[in-house]
Amino acid sequence: MTVTVLGLDADDTLWHNETFYQLTRQRFNELLSDFVDAERLEGEITATEKRNLGLYGYGAKGFTLSMLETALLVSNGSVSSHAVSEILAVGRELMNHPVEPLPGVHEALEALSAAYRLVLITKGDLFHQESKLAASGLGRFFSGVEIVSEKKAETYARIFSRHGTGPEHAAMAGNSVRSDVLPALEAGSYAALIPFHLVWAHEDAPLPTDHPRFAELPSLADLPRWLSGVSNEGGLFGRS
Amino acid sequence: MTVTVLGLDADDTLWHNETFYQLTRQRFNELLSDFVDAERLEGEITATEKRNLGLYGYGAKGFTLSMLETALLVSNGSVSSHAVSEILAVGRELMNHPVEPLPGVHEALEALSAAYRLVLITKGDLFHQESKLAASGLGRFFSGVEIVSEKKAETYARIFSRHGTGPEHAAMAGNSVRSDVLPALEAGSYAALIPFHLVWAHEDAPLPTDHPRFAELPSLADLPRWLSGVSNEGGLFGRS
Repeated sequence: MTVTVLGLDADDTLWHNETFYQLTRQRFNELLSDFVDAERLEGEITATEKRNLGLYGYGAKGFTLSMLETALLVSNGSVSSHAVSEILAVGRELMNHPVEPLPGVHEALEALSAAYRLVLITKGDLFHQESKLAASGLGRFFSGVEIVSEKKAETYARIFSRHGTGPEHAAMAGNSVRSDVLPALEAGSYAALIPFHLVWAHEDAPLPTDHPRFAELPSLADLPRWLSGVSNEGGLFGRS
Repeated sequence: MTVTVLGLDADDTLWHNETFYQLTRQRFNELLSDFVDAERLEGEITATEKRNLGLYGYGAKGFTLSMLETALLVSNGSVSSHAVSEILAVGRELMNHPVEPLPGVHEALEALSAAYRLVLITKGDLFHQESKLAASGLGRFFSGVEIVSEKKAETYARIFSRHGTGPEHAAMAGNSVRSDVLPALEAGSYAALIPFHLVWAHEDAPLPTDHPRFAELPSLADLPRWLSGVSNEGGLFGRS
């Protein structure tokens, strides 16, 4: 089956994101160390984030609001206005962090964009993700940008029909099994997992190791070879 | 020129939005009345919002963060944690407000969707706007939903090409001259202004009263008649 469209995740696939969240959480721990130890705080902020997911969705603004709510909670309302101000500031820094492509990404996108139609497919805050793409300098490699509230099988089916000839002629690559790999496979697409060294706690899921359209690749630089193998499969092995 | 696609703004065109922002601002004024009078606070929050627009974009989460920043500013850092907690709560209420279609909207969309392909085109927070559309019960009338970070002429050209046969066969309707009318006209589309009784301060712009593809209509219920006039214009008056 020939792949014509390639979907790519953004955060922690094209550029660092989780690294900045970890730094933010560390600073948050320091600000509240008078009230609570790091371990309990980590549990509280994760619980607050999950509770707020249906209201705030994904992204740095919602995370900042969840940090503030957690600070009030763990301090029993006695958090200082200085700490509140600092939390707003670390949230702003999180939104303003430098966007640098991960090693090899620029070259890989150059090669991939010559052979496939690239579509950026990312969850999170519309405005912030568009700003990050602009800051990354990678925008010119993409013929489409789709910022979505959830990554489900229907999401991939819709996007790959819009930008190509349907999910069975498309592949998705990203660092999350749950968001990038499983729903893309379910939609009928190929999917490559490109693991990042830090994994976001919500995103864990078992690897579909035996799935015929799945691969785990060490880096984005390995995508062109895998994709050309996928496209030639019918000819080489007679199972299109 | 036949119109086949109709773009519709969401907030204050299909349902109340500004009303809830006004209530939120009023509650914010009350919370900070020990520090500052309503008029100065209004000036400060507007200035903070404008300053943060490039970082937060549009939407209720960014507005909540701007309220918190303004509270710290006008109180010289002496705002109570109770007030901080209340500001978070009014922000949550703003995100959770009931979404009721404005009078006549349901019937108008029923009629319009039988004759045109409807596309919802709105700025703001992706997750929140999708939630509001779901809560409104109006989703089934739309064949497309486009949540965008800015409404520019290129935005309309791209959307009306994606969902139809280009901007010259499309019309846009909404309550903002600056966001809904002027850029749609610039893109070559028709545009109808449907004023809302409250106007957001940032959105003011002079009316293009003499533009041949512009109309100001009292309500969404007047759209079908205007649009059928537009489509028949070539035949009736010989100026297609």
